[in-house]
Amino acid sequence: MSTSNSGWLVVVGLGPGAEDLVTPQVAAALAQATDVVGYIPYVARVAPREGLTLHPSDNRVEIDRAQHALQLAAQGRRVVVVSSGDPGVFAMASAIFEALEARPEYLNLDIRILPGITAMLAAAASAGAPLGHDFCAINLSDNLKPFATVEKRVALAAQGDFAMAFYNPRSASRPHQFARVLEVLREHCEPSRMIIFARAVSTPDEALNTVTLAEATPEMADMRTVVLVGNSQTRRIGPHIYTPRSAL
Amino acid sequence: MSTSNSGWLVVVGLGPGAEDLVTPQVAAALAQATDVVGYIPYVARVAPREGLTLHPSDNRVEIDRAQHALQLAAQGRRVVVVSSGDPGVFAMASAIFEALEARPEYLNLDIRILPGITAMLAAAASAGAPLGHDFCAINLSDNLKPFATVEKRVALAAQGDFAMAFYNPRSASRPHQFARVLEVLREHCEPSRMIIFARAVSTPDEALNTVTLAEATPEMADMRTVVLVGNSQTRRIGPHIYTPRSAL
Repeated sequence: MSTSNSGWLVVVGLGPGAEDLVTPQVAAALAQATDVVGYIPYVARVAPREGLTLHPSDNRVEIDRAQHALQLAAQGRRVVVVSSGDPGVFAMASAIFEALEARPEYLNLDIRILPGITAMLAAAASAGAPLGHDFCAINLSDNLKPFATVEKRVALAAQGDFAMAFYNPRSASRPHQFARVLEVLREHCEPSRMIIFARAVSTPDEALNTVTLAEATPEMADMRTVVLVGNSQTRRIGPHIYTPRSAL
Repeated sequence: MSTSNSGWLVVVGLGPGAEDLVTPQVAAALAQATDVVGYIPYVARVAPREGLTLHPSDNRVEIDRAQHALQLAAQGRRVVVVSSGDPGVFAMASAIFEALEARPEYLNLDIRILPGITAMLAAAASAGAPLGHDFCAINLSDNLKPFATVEKRVALAAQGDFAMAFYNPRSASRPHQFARVLEVLREHCEPSRMIIFARAVSTPDEALNTVTLAEATPEMADMRTVVLVGNSQTRRIGPHIYTPRSAL
């Protein structure tokens, strides 16, 4: 394998789905790429063209995908790794650095991360401004951490009266955990606390469902949903849900 | 004052500074606007053109500015309120809804929020992936909340081993508070904890300074800085700072 200095690896965020939420910076990187690497539905968002090789791969193979991208860049290819949302928020950027840590021979590669519109910000904008005050972003999946850590963090966030955004709230393989997260919220928050289930934001399938904590059920979330939890001041004004800038 | 249904109010995020981080969605809204309202340096980022009236205003007049924008939209104007970063993260979206709450006669106006690249995500991308695991975003300013609330939230975030992003860490009018936040961090985190001072990200003035908590001093931050605090697993690999996807 020959190593050329002309190769690079850029990890980009395609945003939550709408094409007009892809930044020009990301579009320019894609226009220069020779190879696009990523999870099947994200690679499918990139238009095929002459000179561009698409490398779609399945979910849950993030480290294999990251190693493949590093190899291609080391061969002199111009590689774009695509994530949805922002690549640094529960997406491929950290996986690339984990793979790099295991393969120090790639340390001199030109690696850059380009930000994107992450799901919670698009969901918040669709709802109004529920994240308008201090907030936490928590990945509810326990694929890579104990579920006890998730419960502890949700409880601390509630004690601090943070608004919250939950990524990956629920999957077929762990249907009971989001129910437990709702229980933790109920131990710390009033029943009228506002919760927004935002599904497939910015796509034709977009659906927002705003309920109180008392009304919330686990079935309201799936893996295409980001869940926003207001703080104690979050309220409705007309069709908008917002959190004031001030706090007690 | 006549009220026309054709007016609208859109609150947009211009991103952290670079023009190629402005989404096409925001560019399209600006192209349709008759009026742009916002803080002087953000309005200055909008190119003047025939038929577009620019309304720059000073800092710390958010509610006056929001009321003015609502009035213009009620008069049938197509109004874009510009924020830097994302309008829903410590920016103008919540101020618009606060103003709307005080003026219910404007409740039927067409008001939309368009997301943007918020400073912490651009800073994280420049550094690597320090927000690659659960994190909190905290506004350190006590203009609109007691400083005790800031201290409590930083302590809870540290106890939960969240990574953190601090907005508005320091200003001339409150030089001692960020020193106190560093003290709170030192009570809960090990001295080797990584802290990134990211100034003017994505602009020609961009400067990233990564230090340990032991090395951090209040003077490393100013009002153009977003401060990123890693979690206990955040580490350096070559020139990159990243937080692994897994946690204990």
